[in-house]
Amino acid sequence: MSESLHLAGPVSVETALFRLPEALALESGEVLPDVRLAYRTWGTLNAAGDNAVLVCHALTGSADADNWWPGLIGEGAPLDPARDFIVCSNVLGGCYGSSGPFWPNADGSGDPVGTAFPEVTVRDMVRAQHALINALSINKLKLVIGPSLGGMQVMEWAASYPDLVGAIAPIGVSARHSAWCIGIGEAQRQAIGADPNWRDGRYRASAIPARGLAAARMMAMVTYRSWENFESRFPRAPDQTTGFDVQSYLSYQGDKLVERFDAASYYRLTQAMDSHDISRGRFPDIIAALRAIVCPALIVSVSSDVLYPPHEQGFMASHMPHAVYRTLESPHGHDGFLIDLAPLSELINEFLAALPSRVSAA
Amino acid sequence: MSESLHLAGPVSVETALFRLPEALALESGEVLPDVRLAYRTWGTLNAAGDNAVLVCHALTGSADADNWWPGLIGEGAPLDPARDFIVCSNVLGGCYGSSGPFWPNADGSGDPVGTAFPEVTVRDMVRAQHALINALSINKLKLVIGPSLGGMQVMEWAASYPDLVGAIAPIGVSARHSAWCIGIGEAQRQAIGADPNWRDGRYRASAIPARGLAAARMMAMVTYRSWENFESRFPRAPDQTTGFDVQSYLSYQGDKLVERFDAASYYRLTQAMDSHDISRGRFPDIIAALRAIVCPALIVSVSSDVLYPPHEQGFMASHMPHAVYRTLESPHGHDGFLIDLAPLSELINEFLAALPSRVSAA
Repeated sequence: MSESLHLAGPVSVETALFRLPEALALESGEVLPDVRLAYRTWGTLNAAGDNAVLVCHALTGSADADNWWPGLIGEGAPLDPARDFIVCSNVLGGCYGSSGPFWPNADGSGDPVGTAFPEVTVRDMVRAQHALINALSINKLKLVIGPSLGGMQVMEWAASYPDLVGAIAPIGVSARHSAWCIGIGEAQRQAIGADPNWRDGRYRASAIPARGLAAARMMAMVTYRSWENFESRFPRAPDQTTGFDVQSYLSYQGDKLVERFDAASYYRLTQAMDSHDISRGRFPDIIAALRAIVCPALIVSVSSDVLYPPHEQGFMASHMPHAVYRTLESPHGHDGFLIDLAPLSELINEFLAALPSRVSAA
Repeated sequence: MSESLHLAGPVSVETALFRLPEALALESGEVLPDVRLAYRTWGTLNAAGDNAVLVCHALTGSADADNWWPGLIGEGAPLDPARDFIVCSNVLGGCYGSSGPFWPNADGSGDPVGTAFPEVTVRDMVRAQHALINALSINKLKLVIGPSLGGMQVMEWAASYPDLVGAIAPIGVSARHSAWCIGIGEAQRQAIGADPNWRDGRYRASAIPARGLAAARMMAMVTYRSWENFESRFPRAPDQTTGFDVQSYLSYQGDKLVERFDAASYYRLTQAMDSHDISRGRFPDIIAALRAIVCPALIVSVSSDVLYPPHEQGFMASHMPHAVYRTLESPHGHDGFLIDLAPLSELINEFLAALPSRVSAA
């Protein structure tokens, strides 16, 4: 890397920085003149340029897919660098190297750009990624896969670049963000906003809105898990009235995110999730948008997901012409896709094994 | 009323103030020397003193049960003042007249006591109510009924005063607060804590932690409703990327609570909910505590409740010797008990109609 990365938290030394060859016109009409994406690759692109897999990360993830999705990438794993050319990039608006609110302000103060960085959509993220995929000389993405916000990118990839995408695997996600999820995101943004250091998103590097971001993360962590997960992990002691284990757990999770993530990135990325709607500007309704995604698709629900409940993925699968619908049985909630990795790998392997015949049949 | 009420929000003119004849020793060991409870009654106590019904309110409720639970009290309603002597009191720690964090500080500043008011438990609340029930010359509570935090009081009443309680109807609640619910409460308290006006609970009347309390309420409102409720009420417009209806709805709900509720009461009452465990200090486990509640009981689940999911009430009913278990079919989530009043009234009527024979059989 010739250019230094602007990072809210640690990333691997293999992380590279890509500079978009052209300015990026956002859906909002704003133009980002000079966009960078931090990314990683595993394996080698074949001569045909058609063995590429794009992995898309969730809200607080990075390009280090082998770190946040252990067991999914590696020898004998569903995504195998010996066979596949695997790419993962930090999203536009993220804080692990890509252009976003964490980049330093042009005023030389050392303070971050904050919410002066514009609102972006999931579609904007995917358009930026597309420039990277082009620059890597990839002719075909044999698979685009990701959970949660990653799954939104997966759906946008299929809707935006059908000729480039061979197959998709969106996990624990919807085709458009529900009012339920928007409400949960909004409450979290308001918690950040209650922190005086937030200063409407123009906070100083020397005084970050740590309490607000921690409260938002605590709220989010609850929605990522489940009643069962919490009850089994944090049983209350007999005769206990205060100081419950789940409180210190959430407090720890809040503090840990503050150490590794940027509040304005969190703000902008949750807004991007709210914007998610693959039908926007393309189709009169979501069903028409789903019907138009004709590539083979593996749609995965997490059985105990309260954030993107299984009926949302069932709805997607029921309107997509070549979708396989599978449920990851997990008591852990939305985060099951990060926890129950062995059964998830099985679902992906099964789907990939059936792909050649499905593709030729299509 | 000879004494003025200290109120965070409006209450009816009928609200009376009861002064406990003795100091109240809390479970924590602290002693409250001079406790007041704001309360209301409807109807007339009969000569035997056994036609009394106690209604217990939820987190942000007041003694005005006919206001927050319309249709449940009145002529022809399940609770009928022509037949029943109905009592409802604002909980200890509340901010609708009873002793709590909203009472003025002794320093004469006009600032509230805040979290200098000690942590109380649901059991403490019920012990304070018991003094009121005694003072009203009630010999028998033919029914103790309430939803959510109100249902916790109902369960504590049955466990603490079995000889006084004829029947109970806890709605949308558990026998002890789950780690899930504790986590949700803790995230909300941290949102309040992120507001600089909070000042560790010793805030000034002139600068209340409005943003923090509003964020907490927004978070809470999501958990009181359901995916289905939000999606049907707040559909997104085609091509919309920002400014969703659910955001302004939640913002409005946050502001509305700030106008009528006290942040430190909110803090202390959510802590009291976390303390809820009817087995505490009485039984080795929760099953033994449930088995010991032998009065007739109507246990009501709300089918779409994500906060106190139906399996919690099913668990209660399965271990209580004289429990009838009913599900209120509602798409609205936990708050279904405030929304689907007609079917809820039917469930209560059915239970009450069967009571005499059940009691004589017991």
